[in-house]
Amino acid sequence: MDKKEYIVRQLERTRSKKYEAYVVNRIIHLLNDFNIKFVTQQYVSRPEGRALTDLFFPQLNIHIEVDEPHHKVTIEDDRIREADIINATNHEILRIDVANSIEDINSQTNGVVEKLRSKIEQLKNKKLFIPWDINMEFDPQTHIERGYIDVSDNVAFRTIKDACNCFGHEYRGYQQAGARHPYYDDIMLWFPKLFPNEPWINEISSDERIIKEKHQDAIANQNNILRVKERTQNWETAHKRIVFAKVKDNLGNTLYRFKGLYELNPKKSQTELVWERKETSVKTFSPKQAKQESAM
Amino acid sequence: MDKKEYIVRQLERTRSKKYEAYVVNRIIHLLNDFNIKFVTQQYVSRPEGRALTDLFFPQLNIHIEVDEPHHKVTIEDDRIREADIINATNHEILRIDVANSIEDINSQTNGVVEKLRSKIEQLKNKKLFIPWDINMEFDPQTHIERGYIDVSDNVAFRTIKDACNCFGHEYRGYQQAGARHPYYDDIMLWFPKLFPNEPWINEISSDERIIKEKHQDAIANQNNILRVKERTQNWETAHKRIVFAKVKDNLGNTLYRFKGLYELNPKKSQTELVWERKETSVKTFSPKQAKQESAM
Repeated sequence: MDKKEYIVRQLERTRSKKYEAYVVNRIIHLLNDFNIKFVTQQYVSRPEGRALTDLFFPQLNIHIEVDEPHHKVTIEDDRIREADIINATNHEILRIDVANSIEDINSQTNGVVEKLRSKIEQLKNKKLFIPWDINMEFDPQTHIERGYIDVSDNVAFRTIKDACNCFGHEYRGYQQAGARHPYYDDIMLWFPKLFPNEPWINEISSDERIIKEKHQDAIANQNNILRVKERTQNWETAHKRIVFAKVKDNLGNTLYRFKGLYELNPKKSQTELVWERKETSVKTFSPKQAKQESAM
Repeated sequence: MDKKEYIVRQLERTRSKKYEAYVVNRIIHLLNDFNIKFVTQQYVSRPEGRALTDLFFPQLNIHIEVDEPHHKVTIEDDRIREADIINATNHEILRIDVANSIEDINSQTNGVVEKLRSKIEQLKNKKLFIPWDINMEFDPQTHIERGYIDVSDNVAFRTIKDACNCFGHEYRGYQQAGARHPYYDDIMLWFPKLFPNEPWINEISSDERIIKEKHQDAIANQNNILRVKERTQNWETAHKRIVFAKVKDNLGNTLYRFKGLYELNPKKSQTELVWERKETSVKTFSPKQAKQESAM
């Protein structure tokens, strides 16, 4: 047993890869900046398919992968079904190769920490850096003040009402999977599970551009297609949906993850409803004035 | 969930205490000095009894304990039976209280790292610091060159032959639980299990000053007592034992842990053999010259 193996075995956790806990711990402790949020074991969708990254910094859109020799990545469908899968197409992936000595791993880790720090500096210089505030990040007010939510900012909410309240609602509680948009009749707020969940067979493409909505019962499915198409035929009522996918984060908490604004494609919607992504960013709104509401 | 809990849950390992992995990882990564050996989950015997410390630095004789509110320490006898239990009577214990915020924990951890560094500096200034060398630490040659082994240096060997070779033997393999001392007829090298192991019922007191040796069969026990007493009656043959307890380290490897030089107390040895510790340090020896051996 060499020193490298000794240290790692002392620190090891129950994880898929032998040196993962060591590298992840080292990065976090050396970065030593708790204005930076991090997520371990993040599911991502990339053009080449779905994967799991070992460490993810949502403010920086940087992922760390610990490259272990002979390690097979097998993602179990059961575990990924409900998982919070974020689109990492334009994210940066930094790799740490653990094949060599502990000194070599440490030196690579130091390099990664330097890159993280320089990315943080860049964002700060561009006034684009928002310090991690665990109380504020899921608060609709944060996003209302910013004026928009964008997929690239990795936006999610803890509850449906919080997502609704980003668009001018003032709900204290709301449980339904759909809500009207207070400012646009042709946009609906939608909170689906984007995986098979009885009686629905929904899915999202791995590039997240297409969502398919289908009822498992053939008759109910046709009725749903007709109903949605009819409602949207004159394009005056909701044929666009701002989508927040219902997922579980890696700690088991429910999240509603912003996926973008999707529009129905009626021609393709023959055996299922086909929603195509049109925007990755949407405007947020303060509540309508009380007097405006009462004047209506 | 506050930020502290979030970070810790991300990093948590399967351990007895919630914040232990966080603190332990943080200390190791901030200390960032792999000339320093560390051991996690070290069993220790102290005047007040046996305990488990969260992190131990054998070169510094410093232990770290993560003090968790409402955490009960229960040491299962099964797990401790074969464990490598070191005597920590004169060791320093540094405690980290994790009751407060993550900033407070980090600040305490920084303080601990500073103390570790200053202890290392002290040892270096006194020329007492030996950098951790995983290949050398179990090598008899290291200890022969130093001229002695001392309990306070936390000395152990991987094999019986290595321990024997510290005293002038040149064994390539040796499996028995006893060996003669090449230089002293009244000293034996002994490698017992100091816990009940059929047919022996051995024990060491928690202050490590007394070892009791007993056979579970009454007749065999009396014969053993008579045989050892007779052999040592004129004090010319072995009535002293240099003791290396056979234990398992926290990674499951067998170790022979140096406990000191013990001497038989014949008066107390009525129903069992009673060995009393006389020295915590013993001399080591180079192999006798080949010609000396042949001249004998």
